[in-house]
Parts: sequence; structure tokens; C-alpha cells
Amino acid sequence: METNKNRIVRDIEALSQFTSTPGFGVTRFTYSHEDGLARAYLTRELESLGLAIHVDGAGNMRARLMGSKPEGSVILTGSHIDTVRNGGKFDGIVGVVGALEAIRTLKETGFVNQHPIELVIFAEEEGSNFGSTLAGSKTMVGKYSAEDLKKLRSADGRSMFEMARDAGFDPDSLPRGAFDNQTIKAMLELHIEQSVVLDNAKKSIGVISAIAGMKALRIVLRGTANHAGATPMDMRSDPMVAAAEVILLVEKLVKRIGPSVVGTIGKIGCVPNVSNVIPGEVSVSVDIRDIQQENIDLVLNELEQQVQEVASRRKVACEFVVLGGSKPIQLSQGVVSIIEHAAMRRGYDYMKMTSGAVHDACMFGNLTQVGMIFVPSIAGRSHVPEELTSYDDIKKGCDVLLDALVELSGGCESSPCM
Amino acid sequence: METNKNRIVRDIEALSQFTSTPGFGVTRFTYSHEDGLARAYLTRELESLGLAIHVDGAGNMRARLMGSKPEGSVILTGSHIDTVRNGGKFDGIVGVVGALEAIRTLKETGFVNQHPIELVIFAEEEGSNFGSTLAGSKTMVGKYSAEDLKKLRSADGRSMFEMARDAGFDPDSLPRGAFDNQTIKAMLELHIEQSVVLDNAKKSIGVISAIAGMKALRIVLRGTANHAGATPMDMRSDPMVAAAEVILLVEKLVKRIGPSVVGTIGKIGCVPNVSNVIPGEVSVSVDIRDIQQENIDLVLNELEQQVQEVASRRKVACEFVVLGGSKPIQLSQGVVSIIEHAAMRRGYDYMKMTSGAVHDACMFGNLTQVGMIFVPSIAGRSHVPEELTSYDDIKKGCDVLLDALVELSGGCESSPCM
Repeated sequence: METNKNRIVRDIEALSQFTSTPGFGVTRFTYSHEDGLARAYLTRELESLGLAIHVDGAGNMRARLMGSKPEGSVILTGSHIDTVRNGGKFDGIVGVVGALEAIRTLKETGFVNQHPIELVIFAEEEGSNFGSTLAGSKTMVGKYSAEDLKKLRSADGRSMFEMARDAGFDPDSLPRGAFDNQTIKAMLELHIEQSVVLDNAKKSIGVISAIAGMKALRIVLRGTANHAGATPMDMRSDPMVAAAEVILLVEKLVKRIGPSVVGTIGKIGCVPNVSNVIPGEVSVSVDIRDIQQENIDLVLNELEQQVQEVASRRKVACEFVVLGGSKPIQLSQGVVSIIEHAAMRRGYDYMKMTSGAVHDACMFGNLTQVGMIFVPSIAGRSHVPEELTSYDDIKKGCDVLLDALVELSGGCESSPCM
Repeated sequence: METNKNRIVRDIEALSQFTSTPGFGVTRFTYSHEDGLARAYLTRELESLGLAIHVDGAGNMRARLMGSKPEGSVILTGSHIDTVRNGGKFDGIVGVVGALEAIRTLKETGFVNQHPIELVIFAEEEGSNFGSTLAGSKTMVGKYSAEDLKKLRSADGRSMFEMARDAGFDPDSLPRGAFDNQTIKAMLELHIEQSVVLDNAKKSIGVISAIAGMKALRIVLRGTANHAGATPMDMRSDPMVAAAEVILLVEKLVKRIGPSVVGTIGKIGCVPNVSNVIPGEVSVSVDIRDIQQENIDLVLNELEQQVQEVASRRKVACEFVVLGGSKPIQLSQGVVSIIEHAAMRRGYDYMKMTSGAVHDACMFGNLTQVGMIFVPSIAGRSHVPEELTSYDDIKKGCDVLLDALVELSGGCESSPCM
């Protein structure tokens, strides 16, 4: 039993046409016209398999393959169909099309699952409308209420609640549709890696063992704005040179701990940001991630001490503002080894790895056992029109997902199982 | 013969009332309503001394004290009355009020100058309207033509030519009013220091011997934007850490050469500037100044080599874009020593120093001998509402200016000189 690459290509290419920026990558925000077209395409495909579609008040779609034990706990699999602005055609879509193709393959081979298998399409994963990522999956697991959706607002001031309603969903019905741990057996998500690890290692499959935790800070350095020409070097309190030390310090502390830890300064602000004025204030974001919480804490404690030293030596004030964070998630050993054995049996080049990014499946970490399968992003490019994963690798990912669904659903081919 | 502190206080405080941002510092852009009120105040004061006012097509004002040899070359003195947004009440104004008070003192003591003395008020020094500093003095010395003024545009798209005309001046008459070196004997400007050197040294007077030259670059570093969580440290080409090295390199190279050189990174740009994305591009401004051109060149040559090394080690591309520059100006030894002796004879605490900033007087460097007198800015603050210089120090600066005018104009008290 294996998935069909031609159908995978057809689905992904068809969905990539539903973009508001033709010629400039895929732009398909949740609740947009293009989102509606993609939903219609997938609904038609799922209905042709005889699956009934349920859509919750946030626009999360679910389609259940009942199986021989409809009362059994359900195995969820899926991802999202929304994109960033001018994104690619694989992010999210690969996990939706993969789940669709796996279910299609089960049906056509006459496989009868015991536990129900449910394809899930999460709304608003990218945060493109409201700046809040994973908003659909957060709603589905009960982390966001209808009231919360009223507070999430788009750049032009419309709420997620309002936009979901205008798109034809019924946010007033929330939290109906939220899951509890009685009813879910597992959650599996196939996704593109969005970085360079698999491509560099020339592997087709990444078996995810843990999702990194994250802590995000802003460090604000305040000195004295002054004339760039008129102020001798030894009379300055220049937050820009202090910030440069902080940036290199983050890199040094992270590298000292080991290869699993990463630290990034992705955002910098400077006031007044004029070439002939020594800045009065420079602020940098600091994003530290690892699969071990103690490593994150170690870096941040050491960083805070050393930044104080830099600030005092350079006669600037410093302030630490915690922006947010999430705890590392260890994925279920059972599901991880099911995925690993599937890749091994198929003879696909795979590696165990951790994910630095958080995906919809992670929202289910407290409810059920979670598994994730990555396929390589060529040159690590993602969230850009050039985002690319080979269809051979995607097909391999779909096969591994298929095998894991077979294993977890406890069914058998062609006849009722014992 | 000495200037009168009370009159200086009265003039500066009166002029500070002509602001479009009462309670938030002085905001008086050239050609604004407040600029018109300040011109009217100064016109009344100058006319009460019997001086005739001439205004050129850009709005530069001149008022001549004829003296006993009206055909002699003229000694110019003055500064500007325009401000930055939410600026202070001393920048520019001190040099205009100082020149007015000096001429008033000459008149009241019956001093008869031989060479004419002319008070000059330059339009649009700060570049607040059109982003081009020294636009008035550049027009006066012929660096800007009427055509150039048509190209300088404000944020709302109006040209300097148009705004000057609408304010009642006659820009079509330009370049009438430009000077040549036959007619000017010297140009003297009294100005606040706008930095910390005099205040730190507890000196009342700075005698400027040279104006620093400047070279401004933008260094653009291009790497690969990638997910902050998903990209291991050793697989990154991160222009932010490269930029941090460049910032510290500028400081190191400048300090190695000596205390007269300064180097500043005042502006930084980052793309996409999002906390969870390794930047794809970071650009920094580099502003290097010194009174010796060879020092500026030395820093920049060394910088270019070492930035190439950083970029190659960090797998990012780098590009150098020259934004502009000016050559160092050595002020006239004759005028410098006249100013220095005046401060010495008066018993005022003074120091010889260089200026890192360029002022209107510098535009006359190729036409005549230039002298500049600085008075201290408390804590170096300038271009802010808190800008402050003590009236005692301003009065001392006015006295030194007065003495220099007496010396240069070759006159004598009460009777025609030989």
C-alpha cells in the first residue's frame, strides 16, 4: 500500500492556484475569497471519498473516516491551508494533502480502520490576519474562546470573530468542537521542515522527537543621543555599541552550551535612527530555543549578568522585557517509534531531529500523543515564493504518514479485524 | 566696552516665544508663521539701530553697519533662527542675538568701524523643511541656484523655491545677493557647542581652529533569512551578527588612531525585522570624522578590508555605499588668534578646540577667513527642549565676538580713525 505521487502533485498544484497574488507566490489568508476556493476544492475531494465535513465556529474543518469502531478514540491528522503574504505552495498544504492522500489510499485499498481517522484543516495558523499564530488550533483545543476571538483584530480593525462570521462560520457556537483527551488517540502532522537540516543532511524524512521551547525577550539599552561629529569617543554613552556587544554575547553563550540551542536577534530598533546622531536608545529582540528548558534558562541567566556588565562599562541603562515563551514538548515515544519504523521499513533516508518551530499539532501535546513528520525544504527556504520540496520527498512523507495511520488505527485490509 | 546680559536674555527669551509647539520646545521652521514673527522682532531691533535690512530670494537677511569706509570689505557675523522640531532656544539664536548685541554695543559706545559690519541671518540651516542643511548659506555663497531650490522639496511636496516665494521673498532674483571674495573681509559665527566638551572641561569659550571633515557610508550585509527556531547556529548566514562585528570594528579602528577621530553608527535597518526570523539583510550607517582627511581615509580603508573578512567568515555578502562627505576645514590662523586673544584679555576660561559639526560660517571657507566661537551646552544637550547654555557664558561669547569685530573692522571709539 502506498500513496500516489500524481494525485499529490495534482492537489498541491491545484491549491497553489488559489492565491490573491498570482505570479508572486501564494497569498491565501484565512476567511479570504481564495481560502473559500481552497476549502471548496478540498470539500469536493473529501466528499468524493464519502466523508462528511464538519466545520467549527472558527472555520476549522474536520472530515472523519469512521472505521469499524466508530465509538473508539480518534486519530487526527492534518495541518493548515492559510499562508503568509507571498508565501510558498508547500507550507501547511503538504500536511493537508498528505492526510487526504493517505485516507484516499486507505479507502482505495479497502483498508478498514478500527479507530476513526479524522482529517483536520486548521484555520489561521500563520497569524497573517490577526498577528496571532495557531489561532485555529488554539480555538479547537479550548485555549481561545469566542471572547478571545473578539479581541484578535486585523490591521484594519476587524475581529477574528467578525471575520469568521462574515465568512459563513458560526463563532457563537464555540467552544462546541473542542476536544478532550477521552476522544483522541493521537495527532499526526506532516509538514515541510522550513529550514536547512534535512536538505544539508540529504535526508528525505525527519522524525521529530521534541519541539523546542522558546523564550523571547526585548533588551532595551538607553544612553545619551548626541551629535555624531561633536562628541569625542570617550564622552559617549552609546547604546549602539552596547547592543553590538549584546548581539555577539547571545551567539557566544548559545554556542557554548551545545548544538541544540539557538539564539537569534531578529529585530532591532534605534532612536532616533539618524546617521549623524549617536543613538539615545537601541532595543534588540532575543529569541532563545532549545528542547531542554534548563539550557534556555542557563543562557538567559548568564546573558542578563553579562549584559549588566556591558551596560555598566558603557554607561548605558538596560532593561529586560519578557515578551513570551513556550515550554519544550517531548513527543510521544510510542508515536515517534511508529514513525521511525515506518521510514525504516520503507527504506527511506530519515533522521531523528527536533523542531525549532511550533506547529498546530503541538497544541495537542496535553491532550494526546503527538507525532510529527518533516520533509526537506530545499535550501531551507520557506515563507517565500521560492519555497520548494521535491514531490518524491513529499510522497515519501505521505507514505510514512499512511503507515503510521494504519498502525495506530489498528485496522486491517479488506475485512473486519479481530 | 562690553555687551549687556539683560538685553541678551530679553532677546533670546522673546524669540523663544515664537514657536509652533508651546510647552514642547521651540519649533520654528523657515518660512513658517513663527519664522515671520521672529524676523519682524529682529527687523524692529535692527531698524531701531538705524540699520537697513536686505533680504535675498531665499530669505537670508542682512543688516549692514556702514562704518567710515563703506567701500571696504565687509565683516559678516550671524547665524540662523530656524530650529529642528521641538528644539531648544539657543541653537542658532545665540549667534544672531550675539551679533545684534555686539552691533548695539558698538553703536551705543560711539565706536566707529572702518570696514562695514554686517549681521547675517541664514534661512533654513537645520534642513527641517527640505532635509538639506545649510540651504540658506549655500544659496548665499552660490552653491545652490534658484533651480536647485526648485528641486528641494518638503515632506508634502512643496519646493523651497515655492515656499520662499509664498513667504514673500523673491527667489527669481537669485543669485543676486551671492558674495565673492573681493567684498568679504571675514565671517564670524558664535554658536552653542551642542556637545559635552566645554561643559566637561568647565570652559566658557571654545576657540575653533578647524572643522572636521566627514565621510558617511552605508554598509549593507546580506545573508539568508531563515526561521529563528529551526536553523542551527552553524547553518546560518546571519547578517545581524556580522553587523554587530562591524559596529564594534568601527569603534576599535577609530580609537586606535587617536582622540580627534570619531566614528558613529547612528542608523540601522533590518529586513524583515521580525523577532523570530534570522534577518536576510542588515544595513548600518557609518559616519567617520576628523580634522585630518588622512585619518578618515585610514579608518575607512582598514574598515573595508576587515568588513570583507567578517563577511567572508560569516558567509554574508557586503556592499559599501558612499553617502557623502566633506573635507576638513582649517580656520584662518589670523582670526583664530584674534578670538583667542580676546578671550585671554577678558580673562575668560577658554580652550582651543575643533568642531565636529558644520555650521553656516563654514560655507564661507573658500571666500574669506572664517572664525567660530563656541559657548558650552550643558550636558551637551541640543536639538531638544532641554537645550541649555548659561546666560553668563553667552554674554562672554558675545564679548569675545564684540572684541573680534572691533579688531577686524579696524575702527576706534568716538572719532574717525587714522
